[in-house]
Amino acid sequence: VGAVSKPDPSRDALIARDALDPLAPLRESFDLPPGLIYLDGNSLGALPKRTAARVGEVVDIEWGAGLVRSWNTHDWIGAPGRVGAKIAPLIGAAAHEVVVADSTSVNLFKLVCGALGLRPDRRVILTEPGNFPTDLYVLQGIANLLGNRVELRLRPRAELADAIDEETAAVILTHVHYKTAERWPMDEITARAHRRGALAVWDLSHTAGALALDLNAVGADLALGCGYKYLNGGPGAPSFVFVAERWQEALASPLAGWMGHAAPFDFVDDYRPAPGVRRQLCGTPGILGLAALEAGIDVFAGVDMGEVEAKGLALGDAFIDLVETRCDFANLTLESPRETARRGSHVSFRHPDGYAIMQALIDRGVIGDFRAPDILRFGFTPLYLRFVDVWDAVETLRGVLASGEYRDPRFNRRAAVT
Amino acid sequence: VGAVSKPDPSRDALIARDALDPLAPLRESFDLPPGLIYLDGNSLGALPKRTAARVGEVVDIEWGAGLVRSWNTHDWIGAPGRVGAKIAPLIGAAAHEVVVADSTSVNLFKLVCGALGLRPDRRVILTEPGNFPTDLYVLQGIANLLGNRVELRLRPRAELADAIDEETAAVILTHVHYKTAERWPMDEITARAHRRGALAVWDLSHTAGALALDLNAVGADLALGCGYKYLNGGPGAPSFVFVAERWQEALASPLAGWMGHAAPFDFVDDYRPAPGVRRQLCGTPGILGLAALEAGIDVFAGVDMGEVEAKGLALGDAFIDLVETRCDFANLTLESPRETARRGSHVSFRHPDGYAIMQALIDRGVIGDFRAPDILRFGFTPLYLRFVDVWDAVETLRGVLASGEYRDPRFNRRAAVT
Repeated sequence: VGAVSKPDPSRDALIARDALDPLAPLRESFDLPPGLIYLDGNSLGALPKRTAARVGEVVDIEWGAGLVRSWNTHDWIGAPGRVGAKIAPLIGAAAHEVVVADSTSVNLFKLVCGALGLRPDRRVILTEPGNFPTDLYVLQGIANLLGNRVELRLRPRAELADAIDEETAAVILTHVHYKTAERWPMDEITARAHRRGALAVWDLSHTAGALALDLNAVGADLALGCGYKYLNGGPGAPSFVFVAERWQEALASPLAGWMGHAAPFDFVDDYRPAPGVRRQLCGTPGILGLAALEAGIDVFAGVDMGEVEAKGLALGDAFIDLVETRCDFANLTLESPRETARRGSHVSFRHPDGYAIMQALIDRGVIGDFRAPDILRFGFTPLYLRFVDVWDAVETLRGVLASGEYRDPRFNRRAAVT
Repeated sequence: VGAVSKPDPSRDALIARDALDPLAPLRESFDLPPGLIYLDGNSLGALPKRTAARVGEVVDIEWGAGLVRSWNTHDWIGAPGRVGAKIAPLIGAAAHEVVVADSTSVNLFKLVCGALGLRPDRRVILTEPGNFPTDLYVLQGIANLLGNRVELRLRPRAELADAIDEETAAVILTHVHYKTAERWPMDEITARAHRRGALAVWDLSHTAGALALDLNAVGADLALGCGYKYLNGGPGAPSFVFVAERWQEALASPLAGWMGHAAPFDFVDDYRPAPGVRRQLCGTPGILGLAALEAGIDVFAGVDMGEVEAKGLALGDAFIDLVETRCDFANLTLESPRETARRGSHVSFRHPDGYAIMQALIDRGVIGDFRAPDILRFGFTPLYLRFVDVWDAVETLRGVLASGEYRDPRFNRRAAVT
């Protein structure tokens, strides 16, 4: 990357922003491969430096030497609640309102079935088409399982708020859209749901660890999210569940496993749900995954989520500006909201050759991802990305587009995971 | 432990059996804390030596350096099927009939809901009281969720086979009972279920990796089991699911997550189940847990499960004999079947002071576990236990009982996990 003629934003100006960035030192908390610009932390977060040692300790000391005793001596049994309590301040929840368990898909199943139980006279669960696929699939699975008890309604974003009515048991939305990064106004939707007597269930997978959220300030009912994106918990990290205190005693879990029992080690035949959010636990928690997730969340200790959100959005703004000025010769269309306040921490552009362009970019060491049919998606993780990375990424994109190298057939071979 | 007067079995005779044991070299595959006799591998299996390096490699190389690319380059996406295929020969299944996913509790939910879908005209799900608690709780959760669609029937073991009738959709049993180690005759129960048009769902948590099982020879329908006991997958390791080939296309999962979709990376709105057993996947798989489980299962490569079963049962026989002869002064009652062929790979004795005795034993370096209200449970893991360990464990038990040291109040403080 050479010197820049355009006065502002320039590479030097972005370097200057890095120098002023209060979060800049956090980059040192991560093991980032040299020479790579990683714009896919919204799909799989980078490896925190402390994680390898922590996971190694769990394997060697806690499992190897402690063996089954570590359920007590290393408080494995408390890990789901302990890690949940550490996530709580990142999303504006109280410590006793969050627990870590299972996958995002499984937790959505629990919360939506639970919400239906809280609204026994209502059949409708409402979401939008184009929601993240697993959310749609889980809701379809619930509708199939429960038959006439449930009607799944899909309404386009523009009509969704008005579609929340007296038939609605629960509205289920992903706060930040996985493709476009468009944000739902959580406060307005939640208030509308409550006026109509419905519950709101929020998928925070693209929110937690990136945006400053205050679930209790907006009166949120139920929420869940992913551990492996902005929380840096590792591939397939367990998910978290939020249940507002006021719902905890009424909300049943359809997945009534022993870890959600009031006294699992009494080994009695009859299920009696644990008090509080702990009843959202089901089977034996995966301790290796929990340990890695905890190490990822510990990086956030003392971090101001307002600063995190501001930086992520500023990185996105800078990226949009630079792509639109420096790649203006290419057929790229902004798919994300231009307005900062309506966006999450990633930015998407469309291009008819999106798949091949992304493969060529990755080949040059800039990792984003592709989402069918034509979306190039770039995630801006405030803890380890620099403003100068945005400049360098756009220059690489410019090179890929200008050279036409993405037309090489090797960039069009589809991988199992895109 | 001093010299022995009793001629047979003697400590020397047991050492002689170790010398002839074809599985003896496998002990070297495990990291066992020195000075400990570990008789709780049926609760949490010991750490295989290869696991720490393998998990470290996944963290450092695959996650840290490979980042999101490792879903393809290190075939994370294939791990649930690959590890399932390695479990298959241990349970008499075909490679394409087993997949690893979620927890045992969650998988039981899937399979029982799925079985109900295969028997739309039948309401009854049948099991025994005293089944492992999470099995009972999950079934109660299904009954609560599905209301009139389901009737949960509990019938005592002696009446259970006769209770399988034309109303039965599925019978759900744990093959080896977690307390008593009593085995269900899987072939007879399965045959009875089929004659009455019902399905049999087997929980193999205390079977897989310990007994020589041939699911396809007995015509099994559906099964699931635990990864962290005899499979040595680590604390909270993911679970496995078996679906006989003949059911794979008809069996629906109520947990319709994106990893069970026919084309998850097409990101389409409509759920279309994957072919085969892969539709039993739900959310994104936890890669650290899968890696540790795979390392545990790799220890079984080339091992004859017939030899494993024979050794585990012989260890149990020796333990029963020694306890009954050398601890005959104590108030211990055998809770497990004396008949070898009716037992799994653990042995339980009852004692009114069972909890305190177990704590005192653990304090002396013999680790078993306690199951309420009064059961001392000892697991015999054929891959890393020696016959001499049985002798030494019984001598320690004898010392604890003869000294009365277990009456010390410190051995009666209840821990969170018993």
